[in-house]
Amino acid sequence: MQAKQINAILFGTRSVLENHLGLSVQSGQPLVQVNPVMSGQVSVIVGMTGSLKVELILGMTEKAVRAIIGKMFGGMEIEQIDDMGWSAFSEFGNWVGAACCTELTNNGFDVNITPPIINEGQSKFRSVHKFVSIPFQVDENEIMIHVSAQE
Amino acid sequence: MQAKQINAILFGTRSVLENHLGLSVQSGQPLVQVNPVMSGQVSVIVGMTGSLKVELILGMTEKAVRAIIGKMFGGMEIEQIDDMGWSAFSEFGNWVGAACCTELTNNGFDVNITPPIINEGQSKFRSVHKFVSIPFQVDENEIMIHVSAQE
Repeated sequence: MQAKQINAILFGTRSVLENHLGLSVQSGQPLVQVNPVMSGQVSVIVGMTGSLKVELILGMTEKAVRAIIGKMFGGMEIEQIDDMGWSAFSEFGNWVGAACCTELTNNGFDVNITPPIINEGQSKFRSVHKFVSIPFQVDENEIMIHVSAQE
Repeated sequence: MQAKQINAILFGTRSVLENHLGLSVQSGQPLVQVNPVMSGQVSVIVGMTGSLKVELILGMTEKAVRAIIGKMFGGMEIEQIDDMGWSAFSEFGNWVGAACCTELTNNGFDVNITPPIINEGQSKFRSVHKFVSIPFQVDENEIMIHVSAQE
């Protein structure tokens, strides 16, 4: 896994949070060689195929999910996540996947994304390839970005 | 989601269990329009991109995972799943993905698979597209096959 691959994914993810949603993002220290990774209360998983095989997992609290959905709904306060909310959060996963795709393409990779899968509940994720995990402080919430990429 | 797409995925999954691992498989009644789906104690997730976007989740007990790994290790009794065991189970996910790919290609679709992700722990999966869930009785274990496919 090369630095430019991880950077493209972090840049893509960050651009959605900052530019689409108007959230402020502070990137923390990466942890390398992580396997398994702990899920958040909620995680969204996006896979990529092509000249780079990527697994991207964004883990966060349910509160962070509500903050993201609220921004997507134009600044609403979300108290409970209903079907429309989950659908919006899935679309957020699509945005992140598409933005990462664009960044990877700009770096010479040819990739396609799978539809996002949302996982609810504390659990663990494993892959045959180890993850790099980067904490993003997003306003008052922390989002953990877990990336595994192989050419 | 068309019947031939689901059938190709069921056929691919079944062929790995029966032909690669020598397990007997009885397919049960499908449940349609499922969202969210409950994970097993362990789930393996494979995504596909291309002319068909597929999310495939195989949920099962930890005992079923040990049975599969045991078969992959030539009939060993597995008491505890270590790193080598998880790696083998990830390879099982790859086999299933590849077999489904072949079946979908035979049915005129052009798809690529993502590396499998393993999820441990009871949780829920959601997608913007609903799932069809099919129980497979595999020897004395039940494996739930959850499929979501969109052209």
